[in-house]
Amino acid sequence: MAALDRSFFEALDQADPLSSFRARFDLPGDRVFLNGNSLGAPPKSTWNRLARLVGQDWRDDMNSGWWKHGWLDLPRTVGDRIGRLVGAGPGQVVVGESTSVNLFKLLCGALRSSTRRTVLTDSGNFPSDLYIADGIAAHVHPDARVRRVPAPDLLDALDDDVAVVMLSHADYRTAEILPMKEINERAHAAGALVLWDLSHSAGVLPLALDADGADLAVGCGYKYLNGGPGAPGYMYVASRLLPGFEQPITGWLGHADPFAFEAEYRPDPGVGRLTTGCPPLLSLVALDEGVALAGEADPGMVRAKSTALTGWLIELTTGRLGPLSVEVPTPADPARRGGHVALRHPAAERLARGLAAHGIAVEFRSPELLRLAPSPLFNRYVDVWDAVAVLERLLTSEHRSLTYGVAGG
Amino acid sequence: MAALDRSFFEALDQADPLSSFRARFDLPGDRVFLNGNSLGAPPKSTWNRLARLVGQDWRDDMNSGWWKHGWLDLPRTVGDRIGRLVGAGPGQVVVGESTSVNLFKLLCGALRSSTRRTVLTDSGNFPSDLYIADGIAAHVHPDARVRRVPAPDLLDALDDDVAVVMLSHADYRTAEILPMKEINERAHAAGALVLWDLSHSAGVLPLALDADGADLAVGCGYKYLNGGPGAPGYMYVASRLLPGFEQPITGWLGHADPFAFEAEYRPDPGVGRLTTGCPPLLSLVALDEGVALAGEADPGMVRAKSTALTGWLIELTTGRLGPLSVEVPTPADPARRGGHVALRHPAAERLARGLAAHGIAVEFRSPELLRLAPSPLFNRYVDVWDAVAVLERLLTSEHRSLTYGVAGG
Repeated sequence: MAALDRSFFEALDQADPLSSFRARFDLPGDRVFLNGNSLGAPPKSTWNRLARLVGQDWRDDMNSGWWKHGWLDLPRTVGDRIGRLVGAGPGQVVVGESTSVNLFKLLCGALRSSTRRTVLTDSGNFPSDLYIADGIAAHVHPDARVRRVPAPDLLDALDDDVAVVMLSHADYRTAEILPMKEINERAHAAGALVLWDLSHSAGVLPLALDADGADLAVGCGYKYLNGGPGAPGYMYVASRLLPGFEQPITGWLGHADPFAFEAEYRPDPGVGRLTTGCPPLLSLVALDEGVALAGEADPGMVRAKSTALTGWLIELTTGRLGPLSVEVPTPADPARRGGHVALRHPAAERLARGLAAHGIAVEFRSPELLRLAPSPLFNRYVDVWDAVAVLERLLTSEHRSLTYGVAGG
Repeated sequence: MAALDRSFFEALDQADPLSSFRARFDLPGDRVFLNGNSLGAPPKSTWNRLARLVGQDWRDDMNSGWWKHGWLDLPRTVGDRIGRLVGAGPGQVVVGESTSVNLFKLLCGALRSSTRRTVLTDSGNFPSDLYIADGIAAHVHPDARVRRVPAPDLLDALDDDVAVVMLSHADYRTAEILPMKEINERAHAAGALVLWDLSHSAGVLPLALDADGADLAVGCGYKYLNGGPGAPGYMYVASRLLPGFEQPITGWLGHADPFAFEAEYRPDPGVGRLTTGCPPLLSLVALDEGVALAGEADPGMVRAKSTALTGWLIELTTGRLGPLSVEVPTPADPARRGGHVALRHPAAERLARGLAAHGIAVEFRSPELLRLAPSPLFNRYVDVWDAVAVLERLLTSEHRSLTYGVAGG
């Protein structure tokens, strides 16, 4: 076996069938971003698209651009593009507003469609998702209750009052993946719907919403979809549920005929009924560019590179950093692992700053977690090597300071 | 008196103290846009701001830009900038998502704060506002009722069940302005709150929310604020109401400490509690540029130019087009008139197309309304002259065809 050194990882990059994607992003040469799960990098095409939108279409056509340039259709056309990434047939995905607003709409709609009153969720779910569910119970459905249970106990908690199970597909801290198909089947057998948050999954691992019998899903546009800061999120409602699906924020663009200015709201027959107001177009075209770029990559290759990158992160960390008190809460089994790796260490915050000082951006999650997310489209194998090498130096110094009382680096 | 010809209007442009603002916008030289009340024009600075955001801040700093470049604060800083345009002191205005989502939040919050159950509104209010109110009555507060009455009957309809009066300050069709201060006072005397939609007012006429005793307001960013297609809207909650104000879409960015990832939602003590998820940053910085540019102009001069432009539109129309069956439903009294002029003619749709063929963009509202909105910051007096001149030619041809049966132009 080859020696495990930097040149070994350079060789992996040489052989990487996705290596050409890196040049499609605008990246500073002197930095390594391992936080694309928080905010992805700018595709170079985003710039051209914005130039056309602002300097040409908006300038020359003003308001008529909504029709002439298809702006009004864009939430649906980008939605269908996202649908191809998440295994959803056309007409089931639409881009909306922020992920949390989108979640609010679908969760309200799910409760409205049922006489059951429990929202069952993972107690470790992303806090905003939990807040949104609690807000619905406090403001919209005062007879509903949100039941938080640890992920391993979810299936046992399915009882005949559960209207909807609300889950993140990949855990935002550990990247652990929940078995979507199995949970959908078990929930359906118990008479419940499932609402998935795909924020940490879409774009980095293959999803098969239709094939796995998914009901409802939301997801974020600014992580592995590289849609830009605060990119709008998207909603999925399976076509079998769409006709009767009612969400509460009934604005004009969700109307069947928005520009008829009818006196009464009449929902769009399709996925448009999930939308409300004018989409933030500059952010929406940027999302479109990110999604289009992701759509060019073979999903199997993306997943293979992602698990290889995270696998090397875990192997190097365990082998070289384990003696320095670093734990890895992320599953070692690639089948259960999403796109990032979490490392646990008491000095995590200081380590994140130290890595940043060496040009390596990772995410710190209080109190002692680091998240390292190699984005398969723009990260390289050497990025993983370099990050672990710097971490090892920082940790050795930490370790010395802890052991011998020297001031930490 | 000087002859009323094009050179007279050229002279008005020469004397216009706001004329230098036109060069701050990116406008095609061969067209006249009189639909800035639908979508304003792109400020030239928007382009530079986007270049810095995408090509520099996002690229170089990725996720850390949320702190390093103040992205997280931007909904509040742009909100305060808008506050200065609408007469609201700092800490009461925040940029949110679409106007309709923002309206949903504030109207839900108003109903939550009261035991009364009626939402009183103008039956001629903008349809999306009516739809949102009806959606709340259908989904969130099933015991609430939305009572639509014609604007002139509003004050008489104030009874002891009215929780909130929901109104557009300037009518989206006729530009008629409602007396904000008087309505606030009458509603308060009757124990009700007032929620204003400022979409057709902000940026084109002076507003004094604080001084006029306003409670709640929303508004849109893409009209006279020139924030770009689908620019996010904003919310105002008077500081006296803010502490107890609860809106239902309780996402993480409305939390007092979003990145502490606390188990329970705890609203931001200030205006941040009105927000939900990540703002669509590309659209938000574009809004900031539009708002900043509007903030450079003296509000009195803006209003004076606006009423002069709409006054000339009405005078020319009445004098020259009146015999051609054009009616003007917009108030002749400048004090009661917002930023645009509505013309009524049975062939309105054909006239709008005819104007467009001559490079003059106006808005058609089915079935027989044209809206002409001269934006004081980028429109000229000659634009008004040219539009009426083309309209006269089109109408003469229409008139001939109606009278003698010749095919209409």
